[in-house]
Amino acid sequence: MGRWEPDAAGRLREAAMALYAERGYDGTTVAEIADRAGVTARTFFRHFADKREVLFAGSELLQQQMVGALAAAPADATPMEAITTAVLASAEFFGDIRRDYSRRRAAVITSTPELLERELIKMAKLTTALSDGLLERGVAPDVAALAAETGVAVFRVSFERWISAPDDVPFADVIQATLKNLAALTA
Amino acid sequence: MGRWEPDAAGRLREAAMALYAERGYDGTTVAEIADRAGVTARTFFRHFADKREVLFAGSELLQQQMVGALAAAPADATPMEAITTAVLASAEFFGDIRRDYSRRRAAVITSTPELLERELIKMAKLTTALSDGLLERGVAPDVAALAAETGVAVFRVSFERWISAPDDVPFADVIQATLKNLAALTA
Repeated sequence: MGRWEPDAAGRLREAAMALYAERGYDGTTVAEIADRAGVTARTFFRHFADKREVLFAGSELLQQQMVGALAAAPADATPMEAITTAVLASAEFFGDIRRDYSRRRAAVITSTPELLERELIKMAKLTTALSDGLLERGVAPDVAALAAETGVAVFRVSFERWISAPDDVPFADVIQATLKNLAALTA
Repeated sequence: MGRWEPDAAGRLREAAMALYAERGYDGTTVAEIADRAGVTARTFFRHFADKREVLFAGSELLQQQMVGALAAAPADATPMEAITTAVLASAEFFGDIRRDYSRRRAAVITSTPELLERELIKMAKLTTALSDGLLERGVAPDVAALAAETGVAVFRVSFERWISAPDDVPFADVIQATLKNLAALTA
């Protein structure tokens, strides 16, 4: 196999997910993932630091997308409008094409404490990044922290609903329903 | 030293905190903590599973107090009223007497990735416990999850504010201020 690997990262991700589901995360090695994807271990390490990061490379992209949307929100947007823009940007990331992958990923993560910890850390980092983004927009620190925590709460609850929902329900619709629930809850 | 140790747990906690601040968490052993507290390692292990749990035994109590308050809220309380009762119950836990300890604990935890992970896991468990408590009250699953996440968000933001606030600001007042911010944010 040559040095050029068309979508090696995507194939490695699929291979890892299949093996984690079959043998469990702990029972799977990098060599096995590379083998299943038809690449060398060397190629694996060109794309991912370790077998855990195969599942979390997307988290960085998600954070960039949400923080980018927050920064691009109109200057006169309220803190909640700005954070809503960021949460809705996650729906562009989690399009229908990622639904099945997201479901399988969630199943592996929920059943593996080490991965669950990693997921919690990524969510905490996302919260801090969104809070920092609101501070840069001139929002007061207390309000920024609360709006970021609330935004991530909406994202998490919506995500859980979305992966349990029928295939024709778009993520953006679930987010809007969760935002309605939040408004009713705190009214 | 005899088998009976008046408040050995409290002295071990103080000793651990002092040593973590002096030498760092990684640089401290159970033997050193026991020695500083004037007890044997055997006594340490009667109270705590390991040096990490010295800092987290209180988290179980906090969760019990909050979940108990949620269950005891009036039957006709709205989900948000019930969760607010639970969050305010944390103010009884974090009285003025725990303020200094809480500040020092937060400093150690923030500077130690392993402890930060543990703290995130405890907060996730608290969220699940509060969501389960709301389900038992007959709240719909989507609303229960969102109310629990929102309640923990209010708790976290308030806690951060409280440990940075002057010594005469009660935790309950900070929680009320955060709840007001939340209402303004989502109005």
